[in-house]
Amino acid sequence: MRTNPERRQALIDAAIEVLAREGARGLTFRAVDTQAKVPTGTASNYFSSRDDLFTQVGGRIYERLTPGDDTLESVHEGARDAARLKELMHEVVGRVSAFPTGFVALLELRLEATRRPELRAVLTQRIRADVDFNVANHRESGLPGDDTSVKLLMLALNWLILERLTLPDLYDEQEIHRLVEEAVDRVI
Amino acid sequence: MRTNPERRQALIDAAIEVLAREGARGLTFRAVDTQAKVPTGTASNYFSSRDDLFTQVGGRIYERLTPGDDTLESVHEGARDAARLKELMHEVVGRVSAFPTGFVALLELRLEATRRPELRAVLTQRIRADVDFNVANHRESGLPGDDTSVKLLMLALNWLILERLTLPDLYDEQEIHRLVEEAVDRVI
Repeated sequence: MRTNPERRQALIDAAIEVLAREGARGLTFRAVDTQAKVPTGTASNYFSSRDDLFTQVGGRIYERLTPGDDTLESVHEGARDAARLKELMHEVVGRVSAFPTGFVALLELRLEATRRPELRAVLTQRIRADVDFNVANHRESGLPGDDTSVKLLMLALNWLILERLTLPDLYDEQEIHRLVEEAVDRVI
Repeated sequence: MRTNPERRQALIDAAIEVLAREGARGLTFRAVDTQAKVPTGTASNYFSSRDDLFTQVGGRIYERLTPGDDTLESVHEGARDAARLKELMHEVVGRVSAFPTGFVALLELRLEATRRPELRAVLTQRIRADVDFNVANHRESGLPGDDTSVKLLMLALNWLILERLTLPDLYDEQEIHRLVEEAVDRVI
């Protein structure tokens, strides 16, 4: 296995774009090479199998979706009320929506996980860690709502992002904004 | 175009299974013929294009997910309170989860819709009709909650079903039950 970390990361980022554009079955080493504009055969030197590639793509999408330190610190700024929580939720919806190929690729991975037990195990662990992180972060923040509020917001906002990215004409931006506000008001 | 309606329906049902198992790129006329155990070339006599097939699959999944008249009438039975609404929501989650290939195939269609404008238009129309139907049905039922409650429940429960079907080890059945109850209590 080759280990040049920048090259590996560029290949995984290329794989995200292939996955979003072509679907799971289109994610081949050759398609990744083409997308990354590297010689044919490169990806096969970096990943032991397609399973390995799928798994690494999952980790990388979460890495790219994780807010920066500035954003994480900003959770602790401002009033501890519903209005501030709404601002933060709008920010999350905006951040995830701004990386549409990552969201679509993650859905492709989930669907592929119904066919690949190893990928399912890795994704389950990753998403459980994400839920736990959000619950712990929310507790520490002192913002309104309990653990269940966090879980319900994750459920509702994820599907809202899915609607927005896959069927953009279903809800206009004003309705999306309103549904985020209502979701916060009601679950806390 | 051939028009034998039973044959057409059998081909579309076969296409749902292919879509769930192989993904959108695996949905070819040949794969549908094999799945439906009919001679090669049959599907191509029933659908004018893959676009046509994708579109008809979308309609058929909703047809199969639509509750029967008995279930629709049962909405109007029982007390008009949160407990009854919870029962109905458990029933919806159970009904959709009991047709896992339909749910997965519909997600594959949504992802494919990001690549096919015609499919996107048809799905948008179909899902808008579904939202409108649920809102109207809820209004008429006299159950607690408003139009926004219906929309928020659809968002949260859809993603909950997605978690359950794609990553079944993430939340156990008890936690899924609890999240449905909490979702109802909080959004109404």
